[in-house]
Amino acid sequence: MYALPSVELLAQGLAQIPGIGQKTAERFALEVAAMAPAKRQAIVRAFEELENRLIACDECHTLAESSPCPLCRNTSRNRRQLCVVETFHDLVAIENAGVYEGLYHVLGGKVSPVAHCSPQDLFLQTLPQRIRELGVAEVIIAASHTPESRITMELVKRSVLSAKTNTQVTFFSSLLPVGAPLSICAVDILKKAFHARKNAIDDQLNAM
Amino acid sequence: MYALPSVELLAQGLAQIPGIGQKTAERFALEVAAMAPAKRQAIVRAFEELENRLIACDECHTLAESSPCPLCRNTSRNRRQLCVVETFHDLVAIENAGVYEGLYHVLGGKVSPVAHCSPQDLFLQTLPQRIRELGVAEVIIAASHTPESRITMELVKRSVLSAKTNTQVTFFSSLLPVGAPLSICAVDILKKAFHARKNAIDDQLNAM
Repeated sequence: MYALPSVELLAQGLAQIPGIGQKTAERFALEVAAMAPAKRQAIVRAFEELENRLIACDECHTLAESSPCPLCRNTSRNRRQLCVVETFHDLVAIENAGVYEGLYHVLGGKVSPVAHCSPQDLFLQTLPQRIRELGVAEVIIAASHTPESRITMELVKRSVLSAKTNTQVTFFSSLLPVGAPLSICAVDILKKAFHARKNAIDDQLNAM
Repeated sequence: MYALPSVELLAQGLAQIPGIGQKTAERFALEVAAMAPAKRQAIVRAFEELENRLIACDECHTLAESSPCPLCRNTSRNRRQLCVVETFHDLVAIENAGVYEGLYHVLGGKVSPVAHCSPQDLFLQTLPQRIRELGVAEVIIAASHTPESRITMELVKRSVLSAKTNTQVTFFSSLLPVGAPLSICAVDILKKAFHARKNAIDDQLNAM
């Protein structure tokens, strides 16, 4: 394989981006090497900009450029609904489905022994306090249809119950395709799953 | 569409890489935003490294990290064969096919009114001198099967003839798929095209 060391280095870096395999990364790195320097520099500046601007919202823990994030700051959103998602990607998917007007709570992952992610690594502890402070009437558990998500969202349910409020807990997993991350579900599926969400108390979550 | 400005900026940058469309660029930018900062920084460093290290070889005009490039410097290569290619990508494809042991001459593009690339923008003028200095016995025209490449390589043929040496000119276009860039041709096709190359003098290039 003929390659320049610096092109190979970039290929290794690009292959770290989820969704880009080794072969594709090599092709992209070659294309980048052959690009006009001005375009390449614009990409580097965009990376640096992202690095400098990205922070986590102190309230909902999503990736943002300010804290509180625009969603938490938006007073026209329903502050009595809280949608719990695993990742920033899931939040983006639900926002783009345009079906939800409340606030979010981003866990920052899911319980997974393979990925060395335990319940302590998730933003679970702040949840009961947020529910009480906002006076949340409904927590919507937006979980994908995987074993890890099911376990994670069972922990969320328990966390909500520990707040000892009258908050309703609903979930919308059953309509989603088995095994697929929520973030890649079609907009129509997400809309249906949202509208058809069910009460999760009385251990219905276990029957997901 | 819910998006952070800095993520959108990166998506715009990534969409400039040939082969990455707008939707894919948005997806990659989201993935980059959600990556661990250390991995993201490694990509930025790789981009910067590329920027600092990439130069053009003064002899064959390929992208390289030194001039002369490792291919031009390699004394075990056949210095009496010169393969003329349009781009660095084509050189990489032929090197990876492992069928050629001579030197290269990279034109840096092809004549294209659409891309505003005229014969003056190509590394054509240095070609006769290189042929004389190296005492080249054969110039292999590695052109893809497109109208722009055909015109470009006709200019190459004339340039070689202008050197007034006994250099043989061969081409290997006829076996390549019509319209496809040489760089994406399968290794087997490139090998066959190389072995079955034909003499281009007596205007045979026009019949390509």
